[in-house]
Amino acid sequence: MQTIQVHTKSRPGAVFCGQGAAEQAELLRDKTLFVLTDSNVYRLYKEYIAEKFAGAAVCVVPAGERHKNRTTLFKILDAMLDAKLNRNAWLVAFGGGVIGDMGGLAASLYMRGVHVVQVPTTLLAQVDSSVGGKTAIDYRGVKNVIGAFYQPEYVICDPVFLRTLPKRELKCGLGEIIKTGALDAQIYEKLCNGQRQFFDFSFLEEITADCVRFKAHVVEEDECERNGLRKCLNMGHTTGHALELFYGRRSHGEYVLIGMDFESYIAEEEGICPHGYAKELRALISAVAGKIPHFDGIGEAAKAALYDKKNEKRGEISMIVPEAKGKFAELKLPAQKYIDLLEQINGGRV
Amino acid sequence: MQTIQVHTKSRPGAVFCGQGAAEQAELLRDKTLFVLTDSNVYRLYKEYIAEKFAGAAVCVVPAGERHKNRTTLFKILDAMLDAKLNRNAWLVAFGGGVIGDMGGLAASLYMRGVHVVQVPTTLLAQVDSSVGGKTAIDYRGVKNVIGAFYQPEYVICDPVFLRTLPKRELKCGLGEIIKTGALDAQIYEKLCNGQRQFFDFSFLEEITADCVRFKAHVVEEDECERNGLRKCLNMGHTTGHALELFYGRRSHGEYVLIGMDFESYIAEEEGICPHGYAKELRALISAVAGKIPHFDGIGEAAKAALYDKKNEKRGEISMIVPEAKGKFAELKLPAQKYIDLLEQINGGRV
Repeated sequence: MQTIQVHTKSRPGAVFCGQGAAEQAELLRDKTLFVLTDSNVYRLYKEYIAEKFAGAAVCVVPAGERHKNRTTLFKILDAMLDAKLNRNAWLVAFGGGVIGDMGGLAASLYMRGVHVVQVPTTLLAQVDSSVGGKTAIDYRGVKNVIGAFYQPEYVICDPVFLRTLPKRELKCGLGEIIKTGALDAQIYEKLCNGQRQFFDFSFLEEITADCVRFKAHVVEEDECERNGLRKCLNMGHTTGHALELFYGRRSHGEYVLIGMDFESYIAEEEGICPHGYAKELRALISAVAGKIPHFDGIGEAAKAALYDKKNEKRGEISMIVPEAKGKFAELKLPAQKYIDLLEQINGGRV
Repeated sequence: MQTIQVHTKSRPGAVFCGQGAAEQAELLRDKTLFVLTDSNVYRLYKEYIAEKFAGAAVCVVPAGERHKNRTTLFKILDAMLDAKLNRNAWLVAFGGGVIGDMGGLAASLYMRGVHVVQVPTTLLAQVDSSVGGKTAIDYRGVKNVIGAFYQPEYVICDPVFLRTLPKRELKCGLGEIIKTGALDAQIYEKLCNGQRQFFDFSFLEEITADCVRFKAHVVEEDECERNGLRKCLNMGHTTGHALELFYGRRSHGEYVLIGMDFESYIAEEEGICPHGYAKELRALISAVAGKIPHFDGIGEAAKAALYDKKNEKRGEISMIVPEAKGKFAELKLPAQKYIDLLEQINGGRV
């Protein structure tokens, strides 16, 4: 197990990564605990939770991104009030990204903030969403449009939780891992050399710690996405989010990969990224996501990108695109041009 | 006009205090603005807002503390989405404490945070609630139980806005001013010497800047009420909030004074505060609040104090009480003892 410190201005935290990380739940002994989880995770880990977090109030919410909304958020806050928690309580978000996002937000809002521990049980949440303090719910069809930056005290990333995951969920996490590879040359090399081990747990354990270390560094530099560096973590997300909202069905990580694929073509087209590297990156993407399909009506879907939080000017779409190994650039395009490019790239697919 | 800097870790801000402060709205020229106000304030300042914040989207919500709730919060967030604001937008909270609290919270949540400017139009908001970044709504009968710490970039405290206030509102602000006097010896002296000028605008302008400077210092030391100092600002609020919730009718500031009065007796009873100082403080309180009345069923009302955010242990009530001039102490009492004391003090009143 490795301990990765995250030195943010608002609240320093620690991420425990690797086998044995779950033992760190010991740190919570004698605290007032409130465990948030979802119905799927609870089915698998009911006894584990009862044992490791003995005495905790447990709140189980329906599983799935479509429940990452205002109604569920207030159900959680209701349960916190019912449990008569005070400001010294600790909320344990035990589950995937949806639980982490909503649990973090509820913890930040309840009495203006109780402590949070993230126990991510999916690969996606371990490599990405549990670290860095982004919390949110979706609202009125816009992803993560209501939320807060709120740092967890501890994040417990134990590969033991990945054993129960379907392959689809591993793919989803690999989406964010490959995104991180497009931002960091060392991780990129490991990925290029490890394409056959993508679904091996020992490979995933190692690369998870690498991704967390990279993300911790970015978050320390730019906790609230204000000086720009943190934006890089959104690579692939502009297009990915828009398609995810419109078409649904696939997982978030797959849409990130699909978004990266589209945006790598755009980066080529705009003369930002050389063809050779873009192609290599797309090979890595398809090693996880397979062949990128044709999307019917992509022009309509693309309009959701106008609501993206990264945009700074109305009618302009901002995205982070690959430039070279370990290098990225911010690209801003007028909305119509962006839509035209997506349609053109999409048109070349059957 | 004075400029008082607030150097918080999360985001430094400036408070402009005194005549001419409103001219600082100039700083917002060329920004994307969203003005939040309430129906009462809008009636008085509709043209002023249209002129000073030209081009801004304006959102008017119903006036009154009973609208400081989830429904209004989401109405504001809806209006922000409708205005297609991005993360670079500035929310101007133009109104009293309720508008400041809700506007600050909406701004902290929308896309995980847009900029906030507080333009407090009541004395209470100018001396207290607009400074320091506490934002909140009430929920399920508990005051401010859902909220965030979120610092405004600017606070504009101009006495010009106080001219339209009824005397009741000035009294309300004086409640927090006298509370601050109980925490700071210099402000206390000014108040003792200025009892006849309490409703003079020149006196209020000066004491407002003193209170803001004191609060800025406290908030810099303990932004998120974690190391304890910020708790002092809650003097009188434990009992005040409980009675406010149960009996309503009077203003927040009056309840703070009533709470301070009760708690000064408790502090005496517990041997924390000498009789002479407690009596002097109560004289200052009654100079604003008049004679403190008898409250029917105070034992029942007091139970709301069990939900107070300052409490650290179940069944124990925490409050900040006066100890000596410029000195205060934290007192924790078992709930039943607290209720008994309130009933005893209340019983001595007709």
